[in-house]
Amino acid sequence: MNSSNYYTEDIHGAYQIYDLGDFVLEKGGTIRSCKLAYTTMGKLNAAKDNVILVPTWYSGTHQILQQVYIGKGRALDPEKYFIIIINQIGNGLSSSPHEASFPQNKNNFPDIQISDDVRAQYTLLTEEFSIDQLALVVGGSMGAQQTYEWAIRYPDMVKRAAPIAGTAKVTPHNFLFTQAMMDSISSDSAWDNGWYSVSTDVHVGLSRLARLFALMGWSHAFFKQERWLALGFSSMDDFITGFMIGYFGLMDPNNLLSMARKWQQGDVSYGREGDLAEVLAQIKAKTCVIAIEGDLMFPPSDCEAESRCIPDSEYRMIETTDGHFALFGTDLNYLNQVDECLKELLAK
Amino acid sequence: MNSSNYYTEDIHGAYQIYDLGDFVLEKGGTIRSCKLAYTTMGKLNAAKDNVILVPTWYSGTHQILQQVYIGKGRALDPEKYFIIIINQIGNGLSSSPHEASFPQNKNNFPDIQISDDVRAQYTLLTEEFSIDQLALVVGGSMGAQQTYEWAIRYPDMVKRAAPIAGTAKVTPHNFLFTQAMMDSISSDSAWDNGWYSVSTDVHVGLSRLARLFALMGWSHAFFKQERWLALGFSSMDDFITGFMIGYFGLMDPNNLLSMARKWQQGDVSYGREGDLAEVLAQIKAKTCVIAIEGDLMFPPSDCEAESRCIPDSEYRMIETTDGHFALFGTDLNYLNQVDECLKELLAK
Repeated sequence: MNSSNYYTEDIHGAYQIYDLGDFVLEKGGTIRSCKLAYTTMGKLNAAKDNVILVPTWYSGTHQILQQVYIGKGRALDPEKYFIIIINQIGNGLSSSPHEASFPQNKNNFPDIQISDDVRAQYTLLTEEFSIDQLALVVGGSMGAQQTYEWAIRYPDMVKRAAPIAGTAKVTPHNFLFTQAMMDSISSDSAWDNGWYSVSTDVHVGLSRLARLFALMGWSHAFFKQERWLALGFSSMDDFITGFMIGYFGLMDPNNLLSMARKWQQGDVSYGREGDLAEVLAQIKAKTCVIAIEGDLMFPPSDCEAESRCIPDSEYRMIETTDGHFALFGTDLNYLNQVDECLKELLAK
Repeated sequence: MNSSNYYTEDIHGAYQIYDLGDFVLEKGGTIRSCKLAYTTMGKLNAAKDNVILVPTWYSGTHQILQQVYIGKGRALDPEKYFIIIINQIGNGLSSSPHEASFPQNKNNFPDIQISDDVRAQYTLLTEEFSIDQLALVVGGSMGAQQTYEWAIRYPDMVKRAAPIAGTAKVTPHNFLFTQAMMDSISSDSAWDNGWYSVSTDVHVGLSRLARLFALMGWSHAFFKQERWLALGFSSMDDFITGFMIGYFGLMDPNNLLSMARKWQQGDVSYGREGDLAEVLAQIKAKTCVIAIEGDLMFPPSDCEAESRCIPDSEYRMIETTDGHFALFGTDLNYLNQVDECLKELLAK
């Protein structure tokens, strides 16, 4: 694995491409020949009512969701459901700055909103598969942002929604965090306003980003209890290098910036009548808002506050030592609890 | 105020200097002509048993402690106590990288430990004032680190100890935070391994540090409740610039790095027999361990865990919206609760 083969099927597993053509964006601008990378598991039934949609989180692709959340006997069971995981725009597999054609490439890639992803995904589901209802939309972190947008934009289509460890509207603290993410890259002079020649030229910025995520992505308890030992690392330094820099170090800085900007602007009340509470009140889906204990990026209290605004919503906090990055599936106990929540929700 | 007059009495108020001569450091090295800047309030009584020592926190000086924590009718009442605030080495008023003579200046200033500060302060108190007992040592954050070291190094001298929002041993998460602090400066190429010509050349690094402290120094709730409004700022951006960059932006990067290194190595069990719990068990002082609600840098649970190891210790968590930086005195309700704790402790 190196930076030149990072965004490939070799690394992320097989996927399919849906071509949206020229895709006009919510806040203006057009992605020329916009493509969504997606994968499906299971079979679409005749009634087309067994569909589960899983959007991706920041920097993640369909692969980790496939590996960690989906399986026979799990809540997301491909023997029962037709599961479609769609990579978000900017993540390197769907249309992204690093592979866009001049002059939309690098830092000139247009600003994407969460709502753009959701509209693009809607087109894929309806045009390619003629799907008109979703048994469940479930996503973590930026996937939760997309889940909220889905439930609000297409209230009759989304029967159930499970946003995990994410918010419908970015909180001020989360805004500062995403700003620090972006600054960690853009303040590296090697970033050169997006015009580095090789992504690893921006290694200082990427390393700062990785360390920032170490600080905010895992919980205080994760480090205190030396949970990295159980993940196969021999010291905290070994973990920071092996896991955190290993994870972010080969990604494309402009892709990471594009997704971070999208994250930072996340707000389901944007362009809609009413404030956040009023917009959340429009959700018709049976909802389970799932928060993660010790999450420094999306504290449970922020998730709970949004849950209270949704008519048919239950709030659950998953107990774990790992904090936000329990999303990666580092804690089997976390996964079991999430599966329970989702099974209950799907049974409703 | 600008970077050239920042470390002066004009900005930080009057102080006195105690000259330690050549001061040999705990882990090796010598500060040539080491000086402590300090100030006193109140009168030393005949029995010399009314002394309160207040060490300083990261980047702070005697001034804010004087202004925020000391006053007639307060717990730290100069009408009853002889209060001495000693600036930590590296803070810009006591011996520091920015003013040291070649070749110990800039990044060649030797590594200081918390124990060096405490030994230097001990010399000042005993040699200059012939003080042999302290009614109370109280300090916040890095001041808490010094407070713990005082109580352990001089158990018969320290009658009472009140470490606020700090730990006797840096936790792994706190280690990562201090690493991020240091990286934010040292990864700025203008830092030039310490050899910038003017401190504000390192404005990118200083700004990153300020934003990192915004993220970790205040609580999630502080931003959600727009507490910056009450502090006189019109927007979050106005607050980040006006308060956070205003605070850190004129400080000397090498001074900030020196203190951060000291903080990161903070561990009262270093060089002593026994583990942290055994070393804390040696404290004879009546102790009140004070934590702050929503503190992301020193979570209450970390403070409470240390309190449980101290024989005569009470643990208190101060309720506030502001998190760690409540230390600045932004929340009167925080100050009232701290005063109560300290008054109770002093009455014991």
